[in-house]
Amino acid sequence: MKKAYVHGYDHRENIRLQDQASSLVELLHSDTKYPAGSRVLEAGCGVGAQTITLAKNSPGALITSIDISETSLAEARRKAKAAGLTNIQFEQADIFNLSYASESFDHIFICFVLEHLPQPVEALNMLKKYLKKNGTITAIEGDHGSAYFYPDSEAAHKAIQCQVELQRRAGGNAMIGRELYPLLNQAGFKSVRVSPRMVYVDSSKLQLVDGFTKKTFTAMIEGVREQAIKSGIIEEHVFDQGIKDLYRTAEPDGVFCYTFFKATGNK
Amino acid sequence: MKKAYVHGYDHRENIRLQDQASSLVELLHSDTKYPAGSRVLEAGCGVGAQTITLAKNSPGALITSIDISETSLAEARRKAKAAGLTNIQFEQADIFNLSYASESFDHIFICFVLEHLPQPVEALNMLKKYLKKNGTITAIEGDHGSAYFYPDSEAAHKAIQCQVELQRRAGGNAMIGRELYPLLNQAGFKSVRVSPRMVYVDSSKLQLVDGFTKKTFTAMIEGVREQAIKSGIIEEHVFDQGIKDLYRTAEPDGVFCYTFFKATGNK
Repeated sequence: MKKAYVHGYDHRENIRLQDQASSLVELLHSDTKYPAGSRVLEAGCGVGAQTITLAKNSPGALITSIDISETSLAEARRKAKAAGLTNIQFEQADIFNLSYASESFDHIFICFVLEHLPQPVEALNMLKKYLKKNGTITAIEGDHGSAYFYPDSEAAHKAIQCQVELQRRAGGNAMIGRELYPLLNQAGFKSVRVSPRMVYVDSSKLQLVDGFTKKTFTAMIEGVREQAIKSGIIEEHVFDQGIKDLYRTAEPDGVFCYTFFKATGNK
Repeated sequence: MKKAYVHGYDHRENIRLQDQASSLVELLHSDTKYPAGSRVLEAGCGVGAQTITLAKNSPGALITSIDISETSLAEARRKAKAAGLTNIQFEQADIFNLSYASESFDHIFICFVLEHLPQPVEALNMLKKYLKKNGTITAIEGDHGSAYFYPDSEAAHKAIQCQVELQRRAGGNAMIGRELYPLLNQAGFKSVRVSPRMVYVDSSKLQLVDGFTKKTFTAMIEGVREQAIKSGIIEEHVFDQGIKDLYRTAEPDGVFCYTFFKATGNK
């Protein structure tokens, strides 16, 4: 596993990951493989979107996936069962109020969670308590400020900004990806390394055009339409133009770029 | 226009290009190696910032490096001589008015040139004529719209925007990196592939903090200060705050991101 991480930091390896990853799953997960017998805490598994890949890539590891929502856990459990995975234990728990013994885990994995927390450093600090000495943390986050595209469009940037602003009002930070290095350091982790995972999409990558530009990113921005307009942070016609322009980047001569950040650190 | 794309007149610009090449050499060049005996045209070599690496990485290839400026070529020749390289032929020539026989070259290499041209597709199309059938083109460009950082700063984005605007007024496009895919396709190249090369800088990478964030990117933006203020596109105190904020991203808890795009295509 350590070797895999080391490779992940290398520029050339990053270029390879960026060039060859045919799916988001591969881009984000391919270099996370935990040794057999290790205990892994997935903090904030939600509906299990990452859990299945995590458990499949580390079949010998014992994964404890927690979430605060029983509803989400029910869905995550269903997914794990459907995938025939038996190395995951799901538990309802609050990151800020865990009842595990100190140093219970060899590794912690936290993905798309910190972006929603008003106090990400405190959360990381709390989690650190449950990590064994020299254990690792792996954090993955997106960054909506990393989205740019061709053709460029002011309306599209404004529509994206609605999502950023609404998440900010809910106490989160949609541009947290770029901050992982200072955040993990502030939480006291050592040897922090950040590896950006850029998703570059042009029409030679039809799977990503459909799966990422349209159905992941643009669909997500489109999803805040009512809330954005109702809250008065954007005019309806500007938002709609922005969405139209985002779909325009999925045309044959369009390009779409977005970057996820993957950070690791040791206790 | 012609003057606008000539690099190397300004001493500081000269140093910047050198710094840029030396800290980013591997990131941009490591996967460009031409076979022995192949004829390579480097279109727009300027002061030779890329030429030396290009020639070193393909010692058996015969490289013809052209530039419109004799002054720049003199500096490029000096560099090549100092490096003891004998596989480069320097020639004064205008990309839009070349006198080579059709299909004279196996490969074309063009780096940080298209960003200065009002008609990049036409330039690519002209160059294609001198490429053998199935020969390759490799184009590398930056994209100032790909710059983002922590801490974020509106003033810093405005200062960067000055460089983009001034380059636009000179007929260029400082955000051309993301457009390489459509540009090469429009120029009629086949099998176009674009590989983004993201420069991610945090304080675990001190060489890049100094060599890229400070001495390459921020120094370049700082270099347009007088022109930007004189042209009235920004207030002095906003520009200066922006530069201060860019240097702030080079502090121990800061992060700086920028992406170059490398494209290849076949005739």
